[in-house]
Amino acid sequence: MTTDETHWRDAAALGTRLFDELRRMSANPPGVTRPAFSDREDAAHAIAARAAESIGMEISHDRAGNQYMTWPGRDRAAPRVMVGSHMDSVDHGGNFDGAAGVVLGLAAATALHASGFVPARDLVVMAIRAEELVWFPTPYCGSRMAFGVLPAAEYEAVKRSDTGRSLADHMREGGWDPDALIAGARELDPATLAAYIEPHIEQGPVLDLAGEAVGVVTGIRGNLRYRHASITGAWAHAGGVPREHRHDAVRAGAALVGELEAIWDRYDAAGEDFVATFGEFWTDPTMHGMTKVPGLVRFTLDMRSLDNELLWRTDGLLREAAASIGRRYEVTIELGEATNAKPALMNPELMDLLDAEAARAGIAYRRMASGGGHDCATFADQGVPSAMLFLRNQNGSHNPDEAIRMEDFAAAVPVLAGTLRRLLSA
Amino acid sequence: MTTDETHWRDAAALGTRLFDELRRMSANPPGVTRPAFSDREDAAHAIAARAAESIGMEISHDRAGNQYMTWPGRDRAAPRVMVGSHMDSVDHGGNFDGAAGVVLGLAAATALHASGFVPARDLVVMAIRAEELVWFPTPYCGSRMAFGVLPAAEYEAVKRSDTGRSLADHMREGGWDPDALIAGARELDPATLAAYIEPHIEQGPVLDLAGEAVGVVTGIRGNLRYRHASITGAWAHAGGVPREHRHDAVRAGAALVGELEAIWDRYDAAGEDFVATFGEFWTDPTMHGMTKVPGLVRFTLDMRSLDNELLWRTDGLLREAAASIGRRYEVTIELGEATNAKPALMNPELMDLLDAEAARAGIAYRRMASGGGHDCATFADQGVPSAMLFLRNQNGSHNPDEAIRMEDFAAAVPVLAGTLRRLLSA
Repeated sequence: MTTDETHWRDAAALGTRLFDELRRMSANPPGVTRPAFSDREDAAHAIAARAAESIGMEISHDRAGNQYMTWPGRDRAAPRVMVGSHMDSVDHGGNFDGAAGVVLGLAAATALHASGFVPARDLVVMAIRAEELVWFPTPYCGSRMAFGVLPAAEYEAVKRSDTGRSLADHMREGGWDPDALIAGARELDPATLAAYIEPHIEQGPVLDLAGEAVGVVTGIRGNLRYRHASITGAWAHAGGVPREHRHDAVRAGAALVGELEAIWDRYDAAGEDFVATFGEFWTDPTMHGMTKVPGLVRFTLDMRSLDNELLWRTDGLLREAAASIGRRYEVTIELGEATNAKPALMNPELMDLLDAEAARAGIAYRRMASGGGHDCATFADQGVPSAMLFLRNQNGSHNPDEAIRMEDFAAAVPVLAGTLRRLLSA
Repeated sequence: MTTDETHWRDAAALGTRLFDELRRMSANPPGVTRPAFSDREDAAHAIAARAAESIGMEISHDRAGNQYMTWPGRDRAAPRVMVGSHMDSVDHGGNFDGAAGVVLGLAAATALHASGFVPARDLVVMAIRAEELVWFPTPYCGSRMAFGVLPAAEYEAVKRSDTGRSLADHMREGGWDPDALIAGARELDPATLAAYIEPHIEQGPVLDLAGEAVGVVTGIRGNLRYRHASITGAWAHAGGVPREHRHDAVRAGAALVGELEAIWDRYDAAGEDFVATFGEFWTDPTMHGMTKVPGLVRFTLDMRSLDNELLWRTDGLLREAAASIGRRYEVTIELGEATNAKPALMNPELMDLLDAEAARAGIAYRRMASGGGHDCATFADQGVPSAMLFLRNQNGSHNPDEAIRMEDFAAAVPVLAGTLRRLLSA
């Protein structure tokens, strides 16, 4: 066993201890619960801080409550290298979504520290606040506050789903300073960051099914979403109304789903990055009936791609299809307001570094898009060279069965630590 | 104006008065409410009875509460001619669904009576109990009780939807004798009936759109129904799971609807009688979400045709499609238990008589299938030569806006009266 391997192994053991500590602190059977801006999120940050302090990292916080754990480099003024993730979880969620990124960052720092490595510039592990939309329904809350780009109105307007109290209120209760942020304070300057790397469990089955331990993320897919789409036809007697006089919202809706399916087939054939989900599609249980022609279907559509142009082209195709199907079935298809989150493309040099370190460690990996959103999108949007490292996991995320194998966590340590060593060497 | 025309006009005026009386008695804005086995259904029967008595008809009831209004013919022992319909309505329903058949029967009898016609055999106008499924959810309750074919167990098992009390309980409260019926009493003997004619509003828009006052029904469509069908896939992250690993219940469901649409296209091209309705088709609002791949869709399917073989062939095609779509989308499509009500074909001689009388009266009419079920199906099933006369109406049925124009009611009087005169002349 080389010296490096000893350090990697010890770092993986630290990971196991930290995950155990986090799970005990936030257990809420089944699963764990760490609400955003709660005592439990504070406790998760404290667990991370103690591990960081044990290797001499400096602990600081911004006025948004984000925690920075800094391993001082030789040149304190040089742009820093940052590893970050959030530590909140959904209700009855798993222990790894979010926390694994901070734990892996600390494990990599600990391994490098143990090896006697001296960083040329600061390494910062950032524990980010309030990423899970289930608590405060605004994306990337903690990272956007850090960069001063969360709109001032949201501090009061956005309420925590379980308490109904505002973000600002919860922040003040935690001892933070929303008023300074509302007034325009900016805690993180992109110019001070040389790189941002966010490790995260994959949340999907791709790596697990492919037998690969890590994924190097090419980008975070943007999305185009329709939250309040509907098909309005006419309720009618299922026996008494012939086909040509029906205004059947279900048959029209099925045709629309089929049309998007055909578009998706073409995209797949052309190698385009695209997924689409009709997550809600429903006749209203208080109105529908077996012997009524359905007069109303409500649905949502979530389309994602690394190519924002493709999403908007699809919007156009979909509106054409909706108009044509509407005429054919004599119904009105309204897609309603669309919201667009632009894709965030990862930095090619950082991707190459991660690839090279995975190859050097002899770990099976792939490049892949991230379907889910992550704070990393904020960093990329702010112009920080950004990357994500996905960890193979089982049973998806946002559920109590979420799992990663500690050997996969251990496999990821040299990939991240090796990359950081390269970034911190000059 | 011929003498006949005077009688038709007077009979139509009687119809207007009876409809007004019924509406005043059962108003429940918006619309009317006449629950099965209620004071209001009793009152509707009483309104009919008074009109019948005014022309010397005999009033009697069976132990199920059905009311028989009999114009005695010369030969009291000869098989009788019957006109019938129900007088209950859905909650906040219209004034015409059901009642129009009894009112038209009385109007026709009154016109014939006024003309001095003497029937060779008895004419019976029957006010049938409890047809609307919304009250007691068992089809053709009153007519099946009359023929002794309502299963004994249902008298206690079937509950009224608003009270939760059994059919037997409500019958006893009304002064009827469910126990005799449970013990096997048979109130109506098919051998004593020469013909049964049920006038009814169309419930659909066909006559109204075609500009025709009446329809001669060719048959009551049978149905094949799936009340508890489902598509089970797997709930998953809308971003994290690629297309090939999804088990998407909505996309699979849309494919199934599309498959039936294609089958229906072929039936239409071949001139087959067929309609199909996915009345309920829904992701569960307590489980679904915009960013979740839908793991469950529940749906109902109601298929109707005059050709029962066609319905069962379609069941086979549908099960093949479900299996194939299930494999393609890696979901499980379960159609669940199917219930089948056989079609009831109308008597060709009676249809010809109705046609001839409509033509003689110079009234635009068509032959058409009945999509909805009617007590007439019980009579046909019992071997009674049966027919239905549809009246043009507006705004469908089972809703407060249900309407018929009194000129259409007036147009139907000579069609029914002429037909009865033919049937009662020997």
